[in-house]
Amino acid sequence: MTGPPPAVARVRVAVRRALSGLAAGDLVLVACSGGADSLALAGATAFVAPRLGLRAGGVTVDHGLQEGSAERAEDVAAVLRGLGLDPVERIAVAVGTEGGPEGAARTARYAALERAADTHRATVVLLGHTRDDQAETVLLRLARGSGARSLAGMAARSGRYLRPLLDLDRRTVHAAAALMDLRAWADPHNADPAYTRSRVRHDALPALERVLGPGIAEALARTAGLLRDDADALDAWAEEAEERARRGPAALDVAELAGLPRAVRSRVLRRAALAAGCPAGALTARHVFELDRLVTDWRGQAHVDLPGVRRGRRSDGRIVVSADEEGGP
Amino acid sequence: MTGPPPAVARVRVAVRRALSGLAAGDLVLVACSGGADSLALAGATAFVAPRLGLRAGGVTVDHGLQEGSAERAEDVAAVLRGLGLDPVERIAVAVGTEGGPEGAARTARYAALERAADTHRATVVLLGHTRDDQAETVLLRLARGSGARSLAGMAARSGRYLRPLLDLDRRTVHAAAALMDLRAWADPHNADPAYTRSRVRHDALPALERVLGPGIAEALARTAGLLRDDADALDAWAEEAEERARRGPAALDVAELAGLPRAVRSRVLRRAALAAGCPAGALTARHVFELDRLVTDWRGQAHVDLPGVRRGRRSDGRIVVSADEEGGP
Repeated sequence: MTGPPPAVARVRVAVRRALSGLAAGDLVLVACSGGADSLALAGATAFVAPRLGLRAGGVTVDHGLQEGSAERAEDVAAVLRGLGLDPVERIAVAVGTEGGPEGAARTARYAALERAADTHRATVVLLGHTRDDQAETVLLRLARGSGARSLAGMAARSGRYLRPLLDLDRRTVHAAAALMDLRAWADPHNADPAYTRSRVRHDALPALERVLGPGIAEALARTAGLLRDDADALDAWAEEAEERARRGPAALDVAELAGLPRAVRSRVLRRAALAAGCPAGALTARHVFELDRLVTDWRGQAHVDLPGVRRGRRSDGRIVVSADEEGGP
Repeated sequence: MTGPPPAVARVRVAVRRALSGLAAGDLVLVACSGGADSLALAGATAFVAPRLGLRAGGVTVDHGLQEGSAERAEDVAAVLRGLGLDPVERIAVAVGTEGGPEGAARTARYAALERAADTHRATVVLLGHTRDDQAETVLLRLARGSGARSLAGMAARSGRYLRPLLDLDRRTVHAAAALMDLRAWADPHNADPAYTRSRVRHDALPALERVLGPGIAEALARTAGLLRDDADALDAWAEEAEERARRGPAALDVAELAGLPRAVRSRVLRRAALAAGCPAGALTARHVFELDRLVTDWRGQAHVDLPGVRRGRRSDGRIVVSADEEGGP
């Protein structure tokens, strides 16, 4: 008796590990684009889930961005049904424009996955991201000058989303798909240089490999894991520190703040700004830096303008973030 | 009356800020390779130091790696003297082979700078690294899958070494050198593709810029600064946590360790391994991970082999790192 080929075995083991904590009868939903990664994920889940007493279904999202995308999505749904997944749903979404083409497609896709998970009462949704996707994500975020939380990339588990293949390289996962006779649809977006991620994949990462040697994707993913641990620890510290420093609803004690390491203090100030209503997407490190100067470099600054028509100021030994009464539309 | 050109002004301001904490009469030593960065640094220091009541000298290191390097170093020393720096010293070093060509040259160079600083009783040594050097350093370390401390790159201040130009881009600094009529020597190593840093500069960073847009060097430097703050905070936490967990000279309480976030626990375990004699260069994240498993995934493992003929084991609710009595040469 021979076991499955190594690539298939590795994908199955990864899925089995990810699903090991679930209860018998739980529904697992695989999000499948029709690409090799998520097809391999679907194939392995169809094999593993029943053996763990779980039910496995599938969802494919039709972004409607290319001609024939509806037929394409129907083909993917048929493949998922052929694997024995049940229920299988094909969801057509309307992609907006906010956040650029990739961001808008992503927003629409996750909204559809949320609805599908709710409708079918799925316990978890499985996503097919690999270690190479993780490396691309880290590189994209590096370009923004981000901190640890951002560079931590994608989580293996985030809410009800699981990424069982996050430690596997794309080559292995693609080999597994081929060995399971799952024919992938090469998403033209993956090779479209208009998409930044595609350029990272086909230009930036290969250039880094040429210069720095092979293994750069693995190194970036390893860094992401270490920085995720760091961000978790510092966020926990900041949460505690914020409670100790809080004086009233939106005020923080300057002396408490001044005694914190800068990494913790800036996280506390960021939390305070978010709690006071600053939109997360618009609140930059620069804003937090200016709030920090109210603590560490206080020379009687008037106030710091913050996004969401908020302002931070120092008064009576406290840092207060509140609505900007004078500003606003 | 017109002030100096903007590039020159920016370099002088950066040097003035870096030197602002020194006492009158202190000696500041500029390390100068003859490249445009360190020449601009020397020129600005020659201007700024006397105005702050400081003495300014210069050192140039002859690595002896190219024909005519001694004459070249003598030319650099003459330029430094021409700027009014005093004392000016040219030091010839013998570059070994350990750590690769760049590493060995670096080791020899810093040893020479240490000696020069001791000899002349310099308070600080100034290094000409720019924001672009910082970005290259971060990229090189990313390739190793490093954590926050490593990705934090070079410090603006580290012991008696200061890097006044670390927030300035190379273009500005080169412009300042040209405006001060300081003719740079283009180090052939900087364009030699045998040197990894040279390939990062001339291949990897431009590729990233093409894909991710301009400003990547600035973004990498900003990330380095944020991660430096994180690493400082987590190191401080780990130092405290290690004291609380310590039971005897080389033993740590498992229950104390188990209560820590992973980012802190792994730093405590790393500190313990170093304190027990593991050589820092050989102690990898993998070793620390295996030590961590003695705490978080304990299934009666025998012990963890560590570099420097050390081993970690769990016994009586403690993690102990000690000499490996059975191993050794």
